[in-house]
Amino acid sequence: MPEAQEPQDRIPVAQLRRFITLSMERLGLPPADAATVGQLMAEAEAQGSDGHGAIRIIPYARRIRAGGMNLKPNIRVVKEKAAMALIDGDNGMGHLVMHRATQIAIEKARHCGVAWVGAKLSNHAGPASLYPRMALAHDMIGMYFAVGNANHLPPWGGLDMLLSTNPIAVAVPAGDEPPIVLDMATTVAAYGKVKAKAQRGEQMPVGWMIDRTGQPLTDPKRASEGFLLPIGDYKGYGLALVVGILAGTLNGAALGSETIDFNADDVTVTNTGQAICVIDPDAFGEVAGFKAKIDKLVREMRGSARMPGVDRIWLPGEQSHEKRERNEREGIALPPALMKQLDEFARGLGVPTLNEI
Amino acid sequence: MPEAQEPQDRIPVAQLRRFITLSMERLGLPPADAATVGQLMAEAEAQGSDGHGAIRIIPYARRIRAGGMNLKPNIRVVKEKAAMALIDGDNGMGHLVMHRATQIAIEKARHCGVAWVGAKLSNHAGPASLYPRMALAHDMIGMYFAVGNANHLPPWGGLDMLLSTNPIAVAVPAGDEPPIVLDMATTVAAYGKVKAKAQRGEQMPVGWMIDRTGQPLTDPKRASEGFLLPIGDYKGYGLALVVGILAGTLNGAALGSETIDFNADDVTVTNTGQAICVIDPDAFGEVAGFKAKIDKLVREMRGSARMPGVDRIWLPGEQSHEKRERNEREGIALPPALMKQLDEFARGLGVPTLNEI
Repeated sequence: MPEAQEPQDRIPVAQLRRFITLSMERLGLPPADAATVGQLMAEAEAQGSDGHGAIRIIPYARRIRAGGMNLKPNIRVVKEKAAMALIDGDNGMGHLVMHRATQIAIEKARHCGVAWVGAKLSNHAGPASLYPRMALAHDMIGMYFAVGNANHLPPWGGLDMLLSTNPIAVAVPAGDEPPIVLDMATTVAAYGKVKAKAQRGEQMPVGWMIDRTGQPLTDPKRASEGFLLPIGDYKGYGLALVVGILAGTLNGAALGSETIDFNADDVTVTNTGQAICVIDPDAFGEVAGFKAKIDKLVREMRGSARMPGVDRIWLPGEQSHEKRERNEREGIALPPALMKQLDEFARGLGVPTLNEI
Repeated sequence: MPEAQEPQDRIPVAQLRRFITLSMERLGLPPADAATVGQLMAEAEAQGSDGHGAIRIIPYARRIRAGGMNLKPNIRVVKEKAAMALIDGDNGMGHLVMHRATQIAIEKARHCGVAWVGAKLSNHAGPASLYPRMALAHDMIGMYFAVGNANHLPPWGGLDMLLSTNPIAVAVPAGDEPPIVLDMATTVAAYGKVKAKAQRGEQMPVGWMIDRTGQPLTDPKRASEGFLLPIGDYKGYGLALVVGILAGTLNGAALGSETIDFNADDVTVTNTGQAICVIDPDAFGEVAGFKAKIDKLVREMRGSARMPGVDRIWLPGEQSHEKRERNEREGIALPPALMKQLDEFARGLGVPTLNEI
């Protein structure tokens, strides 16, 4: 039975952004870097990626305080050609590494039509969609690949968890319609969803996890006895593997047994790998025409006849778009338990609380 | 009950290649183009992509004879930047268009580190893996995206079939191990598998198709009453859509309601879109080191402990690799019914049969 909850105050997005920025500064990040992290983490929360927004402040702080991330990283290009770069993140926060990587990819794509920038020695960087979405403001397409920060997936038929939920994200600019933004793990469910089911005392649907004999596992409290299922069975295993190679191995970052579980340990360097590819539609034709065609495509999908019981057909990213618009307008509603933790965290750190800032 | 079948002769791959090449020449393709098509279609058959090899000779010939493909296309670059090109396929055979596109992408990747080449006014080009595999001989990674040639997939929750099985393929070079080659439709089953089940009088497993109310559809004879299911439900819908945008819309090729069902009609220009992205690992580091890391990764996956009843863990493309090796050594076994059709086709065309050539 859900507990009765007090009505929640909605926190303006700008206030959350200031709170994260100030907290990161107080933890030792240079002000400009703290502002970048604040902007990206608040954006994650605003678009409804609630596993990657405010809820990550405390775990990130824990790793920073433990010395597990470099507060003054020398994020630099170590290999470069006209349409590519490899970035050494110097164990800085992943947001800083991939923000820089994406800026470089956009600049290179403007000249070359397409560009690919990979990163090694990065860290968890929030929801995959943040970085391809940066391309949208330049009327460009972004694609993102990442190695997840904990292995929950064996090769198909196997028992050893050698792969993570390695996500793919793609952002495509539209004209009058919201952009198309796909952001997906290569597993049926992200591991955070399993943890949420356990917290709420709910069962998981068949298809999320299997046990070590291959039978469906539906009790999230038994999650450690089983594995996440990849989408399309062996296909999702293949996708997780090639995404991992593109984001990890190609960049000299960790994959397979090298992957560090960043929840198990606050100090080991994760050597996280990510990659961003940016494509300039203007190189392929006239960008206004491209965006008009995307609008037409969006309307065609949305206008399809529907199955019984289906109220609306969604485009990838459309629900996040609506959440972002509402949250920008009305502020963000954080769970009361998280608000309490953040208040305590703020007092410990000596910064104003989220409500006061 | 399976019919008793005569022992099949195995046809050397080179013989199938000559047969296709000579047939294509006789149908009117210039000799060099006919040789390219022969090589790629025989390779498709040899690697076990039996829906894309010898079985396609007669349908391709039908479209060629009907005037539905341009026998002397002016395949040309119409837009170009350092790391990209857009190719107008001039309605030539897709194999010729994407063979050219991939050659250009490899050359550009050598200079720029990465390159992306898209095609419009192309046609069906065989199995997705053929083109990224071309990059392997240059120690490069290939990624391929295509718009399928018939719509079998509605947007998630919808009834209008606006999307195809839009495939993704990725080929990654290894050292001593076979390359990793992922080649997957974004639907759980390819439509050809449904047709094969119908021919054999078998039922489909739950999860391949649903009917118009969203219920599982397992009778392949009722396939026209339902839709293919995307992998990971709404995730696969999103993947099929963005693959379609990258391969189709970006290039000015057909997508959504514009897609022409090339089985329904032999003359309408399909305006098929495909895209190839080539990445040079040598730009990111030393290529021998990269390939050694892929070997290690392959062995790690293969060496995983296994679920009960699992004899072996496969890497993506490993089964095709073994089929290719066996078929190169022992020849290709074609179904007797197909052999008979091809003998009749050869006589009609005035070329030696597969056994005589």
